[in-house]
Amino acid sequence: MQKPPSEKPFNAIPEGFTRYRCVVAYDGTDFHGWQSQACGLAIQDFLEKRLSQITREEIRIHGSGRTDSGVHARGQCFHFDSRWNYPPETLLRALHSGLPSGIVVLRAAKAKNGFHARFSVKGKRYRYVIREGFPTPFETRFCWGVGERRLDVPAMARAGTLLLGEHDFSAFGANHASADRENPVKDLRRLDVARRGKKIIVTTEASGYLYKMVRRLVGGLYAVGVGKMSPEDLLAYREARICDARVSTAPARGLFMEKVFY
Amino acid sequence: MQKPPSEKPFNAIPEGFTRYRCVVAYDGTDFHGWQSQACGLAIQDFLEKRLSQITREEIRIHGSGRTDSGVHARGQCFHFDSRWNYPPETLLRALHSGLPSGIVVLRAAKAKNGFHARFSVKGKRYRYVIREGFPTPFETRFCWGVGERRLDVPAMARAGTLLLGEHDFSAFGANHASADRENPVKDLRRLDVARRGKKIIVTTEASGYLYKMVRRLVGGLYAVGVGKMSPEDLLAYREARICDARVSTAPARGLFMEKVFY
Repeated sequence: MQKPPSEKPFNAIPEGFTRYRCVVAYDGTDFHGWQSQACGLAIQDFLEKRLSQITREEIRIHGSGRTDSGVHARGQCFHFDSRWNYPPETLLRALHSGLPSGIVVLRAAKAKNGFHARFSVKGKRYRYVIREGFPTPFETRFCWGVGERRLDVPAMARAGTLLLGEHDFSAFGANHASADRENPVKDLRRLDVARRGKKIIVTTEASGYLYKMVRRLVGGLYAVGVGKMSPEDLLAYREARICDARVSTAPARGLFMEKVFY
Repeated sequence: MQKPPSEKPFNAIPEGFTRYRCVVAYDGTDFHGWQSQACGLAIQDFLEKRLSQITREEIRIHGSGRTDSGVHARGQCFHFDSRWNYPPETLLRALHSGLPSGIVVLRAAKAKNGFHARFSVKGKRYRYVIREGFPTPFETRFCWGVGERRLDVPAMARAGTLLLGEHDFSAFGANHASADRENPVKDLRRLDVARRGKKIIVTTEASGYLYKMVRRLVGGLYAVGVGKMSPEDLLAYREARICDARVSTAPARGLFMEKVFY
């Protein structure tokens, strides 16, 4: 995305280093989000600590983007550069131990020159799980339980379709307007809503997202699902481009970063 | 089981009290087992505290039996007596709040006179989940990951069938022999082993179990699955009636108390 028109790749691998790209899954419940924190309890902190042990270097990793505290991932991506040069299988095997059980590195590969886990992103897929009724203790970390309310999934699905396309999504950004820093125009390519028994699965794909945008899209779809807004109301809400209280922010625990597209 | 031949039920409900029976599910990972502990972190402690708040009495509950630290339940049963007398639906609704998210009461009913959550048990079903490969962070609390080993499920299933029936299961009891306190003869009615993708599910039903018996049965089946013992070896092991190191105790996190039969 930010590659300048030079011959040498913008994100060149330093001489003598190998760049590894990895896919990691995590249960975000017990961590302080993705991004490194002073407390050392962020997912990035645990990965950097373990990679530094393996490579005997000070490793700094670069993720595709942050996830908030409590948000999960099935396919978060990151890269790092190291003088340590072994097959990716060796790296993967070493990562099978020494990490908290809530963090599992699924894949590792050597990256091509110019690849950057954040700057090379073309889009991302997120999934959100709403659960009617009371979640079992085995589901509760991984869904938003909405108690006795029953949701109108066809209406939610119709609202999802109405929101598609390249638009200003400011209304679904977080309250502290980051509009001056980030372009609020995003290409929303997919916003599906499907029922699977008591679970309602929202799947979204976009070129990029404003801060908390997926959780606020889900909050908007939920308002449609319970009949507080019509699908057309939600479209009008987006077009007003003002973030307000009619649309809530769905809880972090139902959200999964599914896949990063490069 | 211990009902004397009198007219009045052995476990009579005291005058003026109502006996409630409940079914509870829990994620055992973060609790100190079922049975009440001085630290207050057992599942029983949280339930008693919440029930005491609801009824404004000092409530003591009686479970169908203990589960160890880290063991889960989909259908643990308990009862308690209280002067508080409301419909069970009211109790259930009140229990939907005020408990840790890892403990969910699924059902509540008024019990018949004579019912006792422990003494009336006719049998129990347990389930154990073995996972080939490396569990995802969403599975890791709820299975035993056996890494790169592949298990011979048909051999395990055959061993399960060989062990069925009413026998002395001392060899599958815990190391500290409780034989002098408890009858080691149990009626093992079901011991199925089935593959579901990368998961291997062991289901057991018996009249009763020695301490750690399910986890040691799974340890024995695992020894068969990896080829360390034949099904016939495992039968001979049981018949020797001596608990030894050939059979390991499978980790608590793969075990679920599924159902109590009354």
